[in-house]
Amino acid sequence: MKISLTPAQILVLGFAGVILAGALLLMLPVSTMPGRQTGFLTALFTATSAVCVTGLVVVDTGTHWTAFGQVVILVLIQVGGLGFMSMATLFFVFMGRRIGLRERLVIQESLNQVNVAGVVRLVRAVLIFTVITEGFFALVLAARWSFDYGWQRGLWLGVFHAVSAFNNAGIDIIGGFRSLTGYVNDPVITLSVAFLIILGGLGFAVVLELYNFRRTRRLSVHARLVLRVTASLLLGGTVLFALLEWRNVLGSLPLYGKLLASFFQAVVPRTAGFNSVDIAALGDATLFLMIILMFIGASPGSTGGGIKTTTFGVLGITVWSMAGGREDVELFRRRIPPWQVYKALTVFLLSVFLVVLVSLLLCITERSRFLEALFETTSAFGTVGLSMGLTPHLSPAGRVLIILTMFAGRLGPLTLAYALAQRRRKSAVRYPEEKIMVG
Amino acid sequence: MKISLTPAQILVLGFAGVILAGALLLMLPVSTMPGRQTGFLTALFTATSAVCVTGLVVVDTGTHWTAFGQVVILVLIQVGGLGFMSMATLFFVFMGRRIGLRERLVIQESLNQVNVAGVVRLVRAVLIFTVITEGFFALVLAARWSFDYGWQRGLWLGVFHAVSAFNNAGIDIIGGFRSLTGYVNDPVITLSVAFLIILGGLGFAVVLELYNFRRTRRLSVHARLVLRVTASLLLGGTVLFALLEWRNVLGSLPLYGKLLASFFQAVVPRTAGFNSVDIAALGDATLFLMIILMFIGASPGSTGGGIKTTTFGVLGITVWSMAGGREDVELFRRRIPPWQVYKALTVFLLSVFLVVLVSLLLCITERSRFLEALFETTSAFGTVGLSMGLTPHLSPAGRVLIILTMFAGRLGPLTLAYALAQRRRKSAVRYPEEKIMVG
Ligand SMILES: [K+]
Ligand SMILES: [K+]
Repeated sequence: MKISLTPAQILVLGFAGVILAGALLLMLPVSTMPGRQTGFLTALFTATSAVCVTGLVVVDTGTHWTAFGQVVILVLIQVGGLGFMSMATLFFVFMGRRIGLRERLVIQESLNQVNVAGVVRLVRAVLIFTVITEGFFALVLAARWSFDYGWQRGLWLGVFHAVSAFNNAGIDIIGGFRSLTGYVNDPVITLSVAFLIILGGLGFAVVLELYNFRRTRRLSVHARLVLRVTASLLLGGTVLFALLEWRNVLGSLPLYGKLLASFFQAVVPRTAGFNSVDIAALGDATLFLMIILMFIGASPGSTGGGIKTTTFGVLGITVWSMAGGREDVELFRRRIPPWQVYKALTVFLLSVFLVVLVSLLLCITERSRFLEALFETTSAFGTVGLSMGLTPHLSPAGRVLIILTMFAGRLGPLTLAYALAQRRRKSAVRYPEEKIMVG
Repeated sequence: MKISLTPAQILVLGFAGVILAGALLLMLPVSTMPGRQTGFLTALFTATSAVCVTGLVVVDTGTHWTAFGQVVILVLIQVGGLGFMSMATLFFVFMGRRIGLRERLVIQESLNQVNVAGVVRLVRAVLIFTVITEGFFALVLAARWSFDYGWQRGLWLGVFHAVSAFNNAGIDIIGGFRSLTGYVNDPVITLSVAFLIILGGLGFAVVLELYNFRRTRRLSVHARLVLRVTASLLLGGTVLFALLEWRNVLGSLPLYGKLLASFFQAVVPRTAGFNSVDIAALGDATLFLMIILMFIGASPGSTGGGIKTTTFGVLGITVWSMAGGREDVELFRRRIPPWQVYKALTVFLLSVFLVVLVSLLLCITERSRFLEALFETTSAFGTVGLSMGLTPHLSPAGRVLIILTMFAGRLGPLTLAYALAQRRRKSAVRYPEEKIMVG
């Protein structure tokens, strides 16, 4: 009997396999600190969170796990992040081969050719990029932390957090669920981590285009959209966070600390999950702003999650084109084909549906406030990992819900996008048009 | 100097004029009960709520206003509801004339021809339909209420609530902000009111098509979509409400009361605003369900508000078509043109943006819970009028916010839809296609 699997099925099964293996390793006694217990659900939750680079945790990573356990988590993060970034970029390449000439040309310009050799070349490029970036910032962070903890622990902290930041995992080993709140005024740590998060969240295809820009002198519409949406969200997020929290959580900080903390909190919902201020102390309006940023997330083919900057961008441009009275959706003097707008719409609506459904279920299972349930669900779906504090106290039913949401949030949008791109076809029969009154 | 106004500008100015005139009438001493005061903001709020058939109130309609004041409110409701229904249907007709043959044919089939005579004919048909429907149910309700209050007050209650229900206003004169909670088990009152709400919310074009169905033997795609979405939302809303509240607010009711109350509470968020159970006692999950129903609202060209059933339907069908691997959006063997999907998307996203923005502002001005702010804002935007109890306690800033939201929610989607339909044009330059990675 021969079983043939689609790439999407391979992806789902592969991730599920790595998660299960990770959960089993974390259940070994050597992973857990003496005097603590790790049940299956806790191990599964932690492994899912690491592989899906979500970062939500039910036990404190810094104090519950031994050094061995932390290494397991680090490896899971790296495998999950790298695997996802490579797979997403490959999907992009295959999609380009299947459906359009232009995309393929952009990729081919970077990679020369798309075939088995091209795949190997691509994965190697991703690997080299990852190692160099993580290595450099691990040293920067280690140098900074060695002042506080000596070089040995400083190096381990540097490596762990560089990997966790670049892969947008957001898991920390500072201890006490504190994340980076102890370093809210520290520019070396917060700016290094922010830079790693942004770079990891751009998507490898865009990074390659930027790298080759000096030679090619052109950027694809995709790359320009990614850069513009990313910049807008970072700027808008920083300004709004500062305005909303100036006298609240930012109140006790000096001016440069206020700005640094606002910028950092605008970076992390997309979709890193570190925080340098106490999330539970934020106002409802700020929390909702962060929910929106978490939902949008990072860019396609990156380590980040969410519905993706380009999905958000295509929807925004559609509104803009309609408001301008145009019949086509236009961007940078290019027309976006209808089915791509439909696809963005589909990804958006299905994601809204999933997040709202799980939030409502959590309201019931956890008897929590709606905003709190929405925050944790969006955080899980967008593989963000920020928490208002609900996650460590989840009931078993709630844990299972969040595990499934993390998995769906990591693989769902990508496989959905891939499946939608693959199966696109004109109908055998093209029906006559008919209009409907809307609005 | 000659000033020429677009139909949309006439609509906005006309509604604003009626609201101001109503506010001035309500400020007359004869409108207010002895011993009570009516400030300008209260009068403006009440007049806006009546003309926009929203139904949110800051003072109790049954005890604050005299019979004269209540008559003013009733007239404002009728002018607002009729005016809006006529204008929306006329817009539909003009839109049909401008942009498509098929729509015009459907309308013309009902109205014979579209010209000045056609307009007069149409408005007269709307008027006759309104008077007959309201008259019949006013008598039914009056007969029921005369048992409790005698024929004189019974008749006034019957007329007021029939008009208020058919126009989807949802303003009651029962007293004490109680709405219809005293009649949760009463089938005559709740089913009569529910029927009026549903009929008023279908849109006049659909009612006409249904009326002519025996002769024409066909329904337009528009009418079929309206009927299908309406039926689905009523059924789904009833079932979910019953499931979520069976042991909560429905707990003390007999079985048929549970079902009757669930059905009634599924009808009213779209977008009538009466309630037969205490809204503040509902669970968070149920409140969010009602927010979704309020946001979707009724059908185009009706007295109801919201983004409209057809907007929701077009978005849902787009997702369905994409999931089925089609390149076109197809429905009932008809293809929906891309710009109509874009338009539905635009109405949806701008509405989400408005509702979220106002909710965040209310969180700040009223220091309220996010869900509470979202509920009142959606209720105002969708011209629903349900309240968790925030509205009577609004600060002046909050009142102004809600007044503007009611006005925008009543006129915004329609004029937006009209403006978008009017200005649609192909670009002079058609740019080459370029794809973007989404999801
Ligand atoms: K994360
Ligand atoms: K209403």
